[in-house]
Amino acid sequence: MNRRDFLTALTLSTVMAETLAAPTVSQAQGGGAPPKLRVGMLVYSDMILLDLAGPLTVFNLSQAETFMVSQDLEPVRTDVGIPVKPNATFETCPADLDVLFVPGGLRGTIACMKDRATLTFLAKRAESARFVTSVCTGSLVLGAAGLLRGYKATSHWYTREHLAILGAEPVAARVVEDRNRITAGGVTAGIDFGLALAARLRGEELAKRVQLVLEYDPKPPFAAGSPEGSGPELAAQVLKARAPALAEAKQAAEAAAQFKL
Amino acid sequence: MNRRDFLTALTLSTVMAETLAAPTVSQAQGGGAPPKLRVGMLVYSDMILLDLAGPLTVFNLSQAETFMVSQDLEPVRTDVGIPVKPNATFETCPADLDVLFVPGGLRGTIACMKDRATLTFLAKRAESARFVTSVCTGSLVLGAAGLLRGYKATSHWYTREHLAILGAEPVAARVVEDRNRITAGGVTAGIDFGLALAARLRGEELAKRVQLVLEYDPKPPFAAGSPEGSGPELAAQVLKARAPALAEAKQAAEAAAQFKL
Repeated sequence: MNRRDFLTALTLSTVMAETLAAPTVSQAQGGGAPPKLRVGMLVYSDMILLDLAGPLTVFNLSQAETFMVSQDLEPVRTDVGIPVKPNATFETCPADLDVLFVPGGLRGTIACMKDRATLTFLAKRAESARFVTSVCTGSLVLGAAGLLRGYKATSHWYTREHLAILGAEPVAARVVEDRNRITAGGVTAGIDFGLALAARLRGEELAKRVQLVLEYDPKPPFAAGSPEGSGPELAAQVLKARAPALAEAKQAAEAAAQFKL
Repeated sequence: MNRRDFLTALTLSTVMAETLAAPTVSQAQGGGAPPKLRVGMLVYSDMILLDLAGPLTVFNLSQAETFMVSQDLEPVRTDVGIPVKPNATFETCPADLDVLFVPGGLRGTIACMKDRATLTFLAKRAESARFVTSVCTGSLVLGAAGLLRGYKATSHWYTREHLAILGAEPVAARVVEDRNRITAGGVTAGIDFGLALAARLRGEELAKRVQLVLEYDPKPPFAAGSPEGSGPELAAQVLKARAPALAEAKQAAEAAAQFKL
């Protein structure tokens, strides 16, 4: 299959496909189209759409076939009211994933941390996936599945410390790579994560081209994107407002640490 | 309606609602809940989901009622395969919008620039909207509706110059504000845009709190988010790959410049 046929097969939109029509280094050298990347993305009710949409957009521009995986094919609701329909189940998701990915969304995350079917799926696919990854509170789900024991990892800033309960070493960084585990911070970190992973899977040139297409040259209007930048007062407001959910997430981590899958 | 009931009525997810449960300055001063913001977001086939999801997430966290507006209620397809179902039509969208917003997505943008019903809707709602806004190539649709004549504006870097055909003054900036027109650069600029607009509508404290919840503390892995940063070779690749679509966008702008709505 030549590159254009390959892109058509992925049903990328025309405009996106065109972006990638320029030859890659390997093609220019006669290497042909790269093998199709297979990305399995867990989707679940009350996840944050932006957690998914950032990496998904980067993967779609990186010659990937993406599977939205859930226990069944019922659409899952998201924070912004746009549902996501799975296109694979825990049973039908391919076994040979290049990337296994878990988005965040605190309430939904807590439910996933308690769901044996979800955790068993993740543990099983992680055995063969090249990269086991998350954005935001998604790392708590990976941790509950026993997949971060002995690994450096990160999470949304307000759940980061809970990773220690699950045997991980919490690191305050935007994207944390430790062997084949790649975890990222809250919500918008998914874009940085996607580009970093695209570079590892497809090379820096493609990752940079995707970054240029997405015009990812951020200029945040404030320095408030971290507790250090926002100052303690705003961070305390956020923590206070979601104290019940954060306590519940901690309890779920404590319970999951005892699981035998 | 108290603040919690108001948030419930918006059907924000619990986790998002909790984030906002901390009292605002006006509430702490006895001012009560602020009036509901009404945001009308044009949705159309082949738009880029991330163009919509960034601002939508910020608006949802900023006490807004969001309307996904299209000519009918049929779901529109997006670049990443997640359809968006409109919840308002050109007829049923409220007349008194605080924000009128147009996302981008080059192929879909070109179709919108030629669609009289879309342009008439935008021109009509823009008469009373407090802010008329766009992300990415969405500014070409605003321009085609005659809404940027005599205004400074921006667009995705590769369509920015076409704004001049539509009577606007192209500006190379992440977010451009000129009177009540606010336009932003490509795709990921929607997050910067959303936060800047939230600050104008709801005050800096709320905007900063939303930024903290979204952990928007970007650390792009490369400097490739602009043609200046990526270097001319990658920019030329992107331009070459989508040359047909860009030529078509230019033609659509030239035709739209002659429209009488």
